[in-house]
Amino acid sequence: MTDYARGYDLAHLGYHAMYTPTPDATLAYFVDLLGMDIVAQDGDSTYLRAFGDYQLWSLKLTASNQGGLEYMSWRTESDAALERRVAWLEANGHAGRWLDPEYGIGRSYEFLDPDGHTFRLYFDTERYVAPEGKRPAIPTNVQAYAGRGANVRRLDHVNLLARDVRRNREFWEDGFGLRTYEVIRQADGVAEAGAWMSSSIQGHELIYTQENTSGSGRLHHFAYLVDSREDVLLAASMFADAGIYIEAGPSAHTAIQGFYLYTREPGGNRIEVAHGGYLEFAPDHETYIWSADEWKTKPGWGARIPPEFHIYGTPDVAE
Amino acid sequence: MTDYARGYDLAHLGYHAMYTPTPDATLAYFVDLLGMDIVAQDGDSTYLRAFGDYQLWSLKLTASNQGGLEYMSWRTESDAALERRVAWLEANGHAGRWLDPEYGIGRSYEFLDPDGHTFRLYFDTERYVAPEGKRPAIPTNVQAYAGRGANVRRLDHVNLLARDVRRNREFWEDGFGLRTYEVIRQADGVAEAGAWMSSSIQGHELIYTQENTSGSGRLHHFAYLVDSREDVLLAASMFADAGIYIEAGPSAHTAIQGFYLYTREPGGNRIEVAHGGYLEFAPDHETYIWSADEWKTKPGWGARIPPEFHIYGTPDVAE
Amino acid sequence: MTDYARGYDLAHLGYHAMYTPTPDATLAYFVDLLGMDIVAQDGDSTYLRAFGDYQLWSLKLTASNQGGLEYMSWRTESDAALERRVAWLEANGHAGRWLDPEYGIGRSYEFLDPDGHTFRLYFDTERYVAPEGKRPAIPTNVQAYAGRGANVRRLDHVNLLARDVRRNREFWEDGFGLRTYEVIRQADGVAEAGAWMSSSIQGHELIYTQENTSGSGRLHHFAYLVDSREDVLLAASMFADAGIYIEAGPSAHTAIQGFYLYTREPGGNRIEVAHGGYLEFAPDHETYIWSADEWKTKPGWGARIPPEFHIYGTPDVAE
Amino acid sequence: MTDYARGYDLAHLGYHAMYTPTPDATLAYFVDLLGMDIVAQDGDSTYLRAFGDYQLWSLKLTASNQGGLEYMSWRTESDAALERRVAWLEANGHAGRWLDPEYGIGRSYEFLDPDGHTFRLYFDTERYVAPEGKRPAIPTNVQAYAGRGANVRRLDHVNLLARDVRRNREFWEDGFGLRTYEVIRQADGVAEAGAWMSSSIQGHELIYTQENTSGSGRLHHFAYLVDSREDVLLAASMFADAGIYIEAGPSAHTAIQGFYLYTREPGGNRIEVAHGGYLEFAPDHETYIWSADEWKTKPGWGARIPPEFHIYGTPDVAE
Repeated sequence: MTDYARGYDLAHLGYHAMYTPTPDATLAYFVDLLGMDIVAQDGDSTYLRAFGDYQLWSLKLTASNQGGLEYMSWRTESDAALERRVAWLEANGHAGRWLDPEYGIGRSYEFLDPDGHTFRLYFDTERYVAPEGKRPAIPTNVQAYAGRGANVRRLDHVNLLARDVRRNREFWEDGFGLRTYEVIRQADGVAEAGAWMSSSIQGHELIYTQENTSGSGRLHHFAYLVDSREDVLLAASMFADAGIYIEAGPSAHTAIQGFYLYTREPGGNRIEVAHGGYLEFAPDHETYIWSADEWKTKPGWGARIPPEFHIYGTPDVAE
Repeated sequence: MTDYARGYDLAHLGYHAMYTPTPDATLAYFVDLLGMDIVAQDGDSTYLRAFGDYQLWSLKLTASNQGGLEYMSWRTESDAALERRVAWLEANGHAGRWLDPEYGIGRSYEFLDPDGHTFRLYFDTERYVAPEGKRPAIPTNVQAYAGRGANVRRLDHVNLLARDVRRNREFWEDGFGLRTYEVIRQADGVAEAGAWMSSSIQGHELIYTQENTSGSGRLHHFAYLVDSREDVLLAASMFADAGIYIEAGPSAHTAIQGFYLYTREPGGNRIEVAHGGYLEFAPDHETYIWSADEWKTKPGWGARIPPEFHIYGTPDVAE
Repeated sequence: MTDYARGYDLAHLGYHAMYTPTPDATLAYFVDLLGMDIVAQDGDSTYLRAFGDYQLWSLKLTASNQGGLEYMSWRTESDAALERRVAWLEANGHAGRWLDPEYGIGRSYEFLDPDGHTFRLYFDTERYVAPEGKRPAIPTNVQAYAGRGANVRRLDHVNLLARDVRRNREFWEDGFGLRTYEVIRQADGVAEAGAWMSSSIQGHELIYTQENTSGSGRLHHFAYLVDSREDVLLAASMFADAGIYIEAGPSAHTAIQGFYLYTREPGGNRIEVAHGGYLEFAPDHETYIWSADEWKTKPGWGARIPPEFHIYGTPDVAE
Repeated sequence: MTDYARGYDLAHLGYHAMYTPTPDATLAYFVDLLGMDIVAQDGDSTYLRAFGDYQLWSLKLTASNQGGLEYMSWRTESDAALERRVAWLEANGHAGRWLDPEYGIGRSYEFLDPDGHTFRLYFDTERYVAPEGKRPAIPTNVQAYAGRGANVRRLDHVNLLARDVRRNREFWEDGFGLRTYEVIRQADGVAEAGAWMSSSIQGHELIYTQENTSGSGRLHHFAYLVDSREDVLLAASMFADAGIYIEAGPSAHTAIQGFYLYTREPGGNRIEVAHGGYLEFAPDHETYIWSADEWKTKPGWGARIPPEFHIYGTPDVAE
């Protein structure tokens, strides 16, 4: 067992960037309906934060000809941890490059996962200090409640599509010590249809599910956290009234057991409003492996997911 | 406008009776999973109450060869109101018969709706007095919380199947002043697929939906009320763990906007655990008429209902 | 039993008007924190609506040197019901005067309750039609969810202070058939400390509690409805972050059993964000009378109310 | 920074034991009202589990002449971690003794914290396998929902009283790497009134607050987790109806921001039903230090705690 055996070198998901072909409408979605705040703008990019983010920002939206992930990132536990993970990448054929600091974030190391998604690692970050009018009543909060739309607190997890789920899962386990809480096996008993991974006791931060098109490096969804299942239900009513497309939910997932609501922001990226999912405290917890047959029985009470959920991603590509 | 124009002669749904081919398992469902109490037994019949019922009992379960409705009932506003409604029935070709008082209930008048469901009207009833150990902390409650399973508070509404929804709706409007809050029209623009009716400001007590089999006088479902949508979600987890078949939900209905969970009790009767639905205060409120086309668009965010929801009822009959 | 015996001539609380010494800050409270919309302005007055109001507006705020109630109103069941209630007022020494129609509302009859609060009765009203951008997904809703702050749906109830609670209660019972669901007796066993009244099955619309100062015609609070107790808790976090004074709650009331949060809007008027309270279906329900001693035992689990709750009202006067 | 710097050698709270002078009534409280299950009995002791516990049991109740803590425990990350922590204890003047395995648990090492509370460390434990009738629908759950009373999922945290909070906090930080999320300073700016500590990202597992009597080694409370704030509110109604003493809440804590309900089980031990509290993801998070003055301002909206909360503990001793 190495010193990062339980994901100790990665602390949590960090700052992320997404493309959108409809920047104004997408911004309105994130600001008015999710309740996020704009903290900076730079050319075609806008930096946003949720009220629970302790960093300056967590999401950059950039105008482009289509939706999709620009990059996502992990904050490491320390600068030494950052160096250790970069050393592993370079020693194992995944070398990337160091990036200069940008708005509120120190140096980052950028690299690709096996499916071609861009990731960054960083440690240095600037803490947000709420200005007058945004200060929270309780000083252990970072910022006042948004009081707008879904009032999302922070990013909860990210789901990427991968042509080879197993290979991507093993990449994060071997190189970064991510814990895998659940895996769905395909009918051959070897290939995997999904994997739920985390750097901590919370059930999911990074999910890979099967890419069923010719694409690669695609985004399935970003999930933003609200404080209760009741808040997910309230968000659903507000999204429906705002004319936002609701793809699935509100209902409960079998894997990790979170409560979900899937929408598409106007730029086409799938965005989830979520609450819950279990915490796993056992240090000797074993990954739960769903066989293809067992997964089909769909235990629990969650609604059936529509077929498009297993195909659509951004950028949108021909099947 | 007559003196019962807003349903004033009917006060609320009263005491009801259901058949079950699996009396022991059905009782276990109502007691352990819904949280109701047994108050009396008489031969093949068991009398049950929910903790919010002010009467002695609200549901009688009777062993039979198949599930279905034995009868349902309305309490009238007064004894005079009871007489007025009976006079209307007898003057309009719906004469029934007076029944002697039974356990906790005074005389009733029994008759049929146009589809052949048995109904009763009554006014005299005995108030429940909670014994030691069942007394509530707050004296305006009737009884202590069940503390079991779904903790249902009371019956919320009943849904019956009818070969001619419109004719049944008009029967209750003309004879009893029930208010109809919503109607779904069929494609011909005349026949109706559903009607939501109430004796009060709450959006539904008695619902008729289209009978799509050769049957008549069939039950679609009884709906029991819990205190929050969160309680419906909790109930879903408990029902799933108990191996109860969940047909649909938890999700939100478009008509009346309640939050639903449909199960089948072991005897086959469909039972809903529900919360919410709107109150309608406007005295000049007009029935909302859904055209067949508008209904198909399914506005709002509720999950799709499975096809069996539109066919299955008790007793179960060949299509 | 007269034809209005169960409050049948009064349909529901109508349009209301409040004074404020801080009109801009008060408007910001109602719009940004409660989530109401401005629909019109006229001199020193602003007309507001909540997203669930079927009328054009429900609250008028008018600049003045101090807070307090300008008037409140009831909508009647019909124009004939309006005439009947005016006839009763004029025959019983409570004559007032007819007012011309104003913004969105037809003629009203204005009069005083025994404590000197101004009330109006009216029937004609204009229905709100949501413009593009405010249209709800489900056509049985009037307007889209606010998506701001507490997202209040509509006014739930009003609490007035009265030097003689009993006399005011009897005025509404005798003249308008309001149902009284609960009364608190004072130690002498005759005078009353509080009375909870309604025109319908919902537990409270109009409350009188004891005036403990030299004032008269004063307002205790307006209560706005949200969809769940969880929404009340969320509102509390948003109010605290916005620096709004929270006087009491969130917690549960013993009388009527609603879940409450008491704040003061910047102009000093006490505003409650509320959910719940029971519905009373029994036609032969009897008013629950709390003796002074029984009331002191405070059954149930609600938090203790601070002393100022029993003294402060608007306008604020010397004790 | 050592390899356990973020609490890595301790995984989570483990199995615990409590005394009660009223064993039958206390058992009824834990089984009927909290919803826990009895898994074994041994002389005067009964072993209980909550439905979310992955171990065989988590609480032992033992008859005694008064309430109080017998012991509490931590599970370590590994057997090596157990050895490392014992080595630290023995090297730093806190030597205890090894205990033989007992029901479902391997060897433990027992020692005292500076205030004299008994703790145990262990790694080996037996996983619970649900028998027929207790199996959950979703295999990533351990056991079916209780469906009784408050349906508590697992122990959330424990609060002990200490004459010297600071010394006890430093003991756990120095020896075990517990993270301290919040501290309240006393008026002298040095002594501490409270400290909230955790072995993980969740805001509190072990709390010390000031002992204000002559006692030592006393228990303030055990807190059991439910799935939502709505479940805490439901529990309050059930406890009130069951005649259980409710000391405080439901309301929200300022420290860690959990939602609480404090009761006393019949044997006098204070038991909380709780939901929430923040997760802290930042690896460079600093302990939030409340000055005595700042703490007095009580930011946020939680209700005032009654004075007895700061004095009463078990065993109950003279002030």
